[in-house]
Amino acid sequence: MSARIAAVDWGTSRLRIWLLDEAGCVLAERRSDEGMLAARPDGFARILEGHLAAMGAPADLPAIICGMAGSRQGWVEAPYVYVPASMQGIFGGAAPIPGSRRDVRIMPGVAQRDPASPDVMRGEETQLAGIARLLGSDTHTVCMPGTHSKWVEIAEGSIAGFATYMTGELFSVLAGHSILSHSLGAESHSVSASAPLFRRWCEESLTEPGDVNARLFRIRASTLLLDLQPIQAAAALSGLLIGAEVASASGRFARHGAPVVLVASGALRPLYEAALGLAGLEFHPVEADEAVRAGLFAAAVHLGMAEPAGATA
Amino acid sequence: MSARIAAVDWGTSRLRIWLLDEAGCVLAERRSDEGMLAARPDGFARILEGHLAAMGAPADLPAIICGMAGSRQGWVEAPYVYVPASMQGIFGGAAPIPGSRRDVRIMPGVAQRDPASPDVMRGEETQLAGIARLLGSDTHTVCMPGTHSKWVEIAEGSIAGFATYMTGELFSVLAGHSILSHSLGAESHSVSASAPLFRRWCEESLTEPGDVNARLFRIRASTLLLDLQPIQAAAALSGLLIGAEVASASGRFARHGAPVVLVASGALRPLYEAALGLAGLEFHPVEADEAVRAGLFAAAVHLGMAEPAGATA
Repeated sequence: MSARIAAVDWGTSRLRIWLLDEAGCVLAERRSDEGMLAARPDGFARILEGHLAAMGAPADLPAIICGMAGSRQGWVEAPYVYVPASMQGIFGGAAPIPGSRRDVRIMPGVAQRDPASPDVMRGEETQLAGIARLLGSDTHTVCMPGTHSKWVEIAEGSIAGFATYMTGELFSVLAGHSILSHSLGAESHSVSASAPLFRRWCEESLTEPGDVNARLFRIRASTLLLDLQPIQAAAALSGLLIGAEVASASGRFARHGAPVVLVASGALRPLYEAALGLAGLEFHPVEADEAVRAGLFAAAVHLGMAEPAGATA
Repeated sequence: MSARIAAVDWGTSRLRIWLLDEAGCVLAERRSDEGMLAARPDGFARILEGHLAAMGAPADLPAIICGMAGSRQGWVEAPYVYVPASMQGIFGGAAPIPGSRRDVRIMPGVAQRDPASPDVMRGEETQLAGIARLLGSDTHTVCMPGTHSKWVEIAEGSIAGFATYMTGELFSVLAGHSILSHSLGAESHSVSASAPLFRRWCEESLTEPGDVNARLFRIRASTLLLDLQPIQAAAALSGLLIGAEVASASGRFARHGAPVVLVASGALRPLYEAALGLAGLEFHPVEADEAVRAGLFAAAVHLGMAEPAGATA
């Protein structure tokens, strides 16, 4: 099998590259921390070519990229497509890299320009394209946890609307830069979804999502008065923030009773599965890494950059 | 008039010293950024003596201190007094500094050990002592804005319960360390209580306090899509966080319809006045600086360190 396309997820702080065959299956993979911040202003081409050479990719193999590399601060800006955004409309917004020897294109982000709820995404639209077949033409709520979690309403195969929750970033800045750092300690802790404090604080947040600020300082007070340990403090903070996100977002998006599609991977997946369960929401989990590869492959096929298996030349 | 007591408010990051006469009136004042963090582990005595000498205070003038200097990380730990805490009980918890040539005592903090809502304060209990006469024996809700805002329920002259909101610190860490720093810019902005965005975001938070996390990222999106300027972003973030605090706290504390006693000073006072007004709450403002001086003087009188005007020797 030979590579048909290089699929690239180029985020703010990390870079992942896959060589995919004609069925969209993975032939090779590389991961690096040369994200957008490390690559700019002019390292994008050099970094991409270095990895592709190391993977043995031919010089004319096309590459399709999604993520923050397409932002104004990135390699080439791929302007936002506005909601309601069909997958075809998103594919059509891909921006070519001028002056590149190989065919390189960057997926656009999606924006919601409604002054009452302005919002932007870059990267998640490609994951959504990767699960378009699963979503079909029904109405769905999709939960995509992360540094900036996205909750998305899909209707008739299009992105109808979405909201961002800064849950992952809130955890980081509170753990690293607030008085709660004394409770969580310098080590980073991997929170377990079965930790009693994760579950209890999550349930409390689900019940009273407006009291998050009042509960934050209780973590500090629990360290001082009740000998709360750092791993417990991390579990409490994680449960508090994820519970409040799920409470707010499910009130806005999960109105129609269908299972929430949870697009997640790694350590966040069990935490959000637990939180959705505690909220009494049914959900259907999807692996986020597979979704982004499938979305990049679908974009490449749609744009004529790669030919799928079974296509007639 | 000669000084009867040195009154010292020694917080985490700043130090204020007043020489007070027999009526508790200010004869001299010094302010410095030699807070607890700058003074520890062993600079407390040197710093205090340096300021008192510069103010011309006699070597035997007693000094009464409140704030984080009395914490475990401070000069000498003055253990917490637990709620319900009477003012007499708080005064009685003052800890003497051993080995000091002058009579120096540090006020205790107050703690709430209830496992469902553990909480601590250090410094605010002294402000509350300073307004004890105003509060009388009625039930009151007191709002004390700051880095860590306190909402306190006073019943029959005692601290019956309280809650901390990390509102000021949330603003700082989000403005300084999150993606919102790109929206607020490097300069710090003084937010006006009459700024339309402060008022609008505050009202939205008061209506839906559970959606704070969803609204945070809209500040970033508004910069990208709607050309929101840094001063507007600061007003929006301030309104969002203060509105959510007032919504949550007034639901818990302001049940009895009496005016909220607002103990505040400086730039925070008009912002909280506006937020309380938007929440439809009546309030009675009190100057925080005067309250802490009055509380320190009352403690000194109670402890026999200073003799009030009119007392018979």
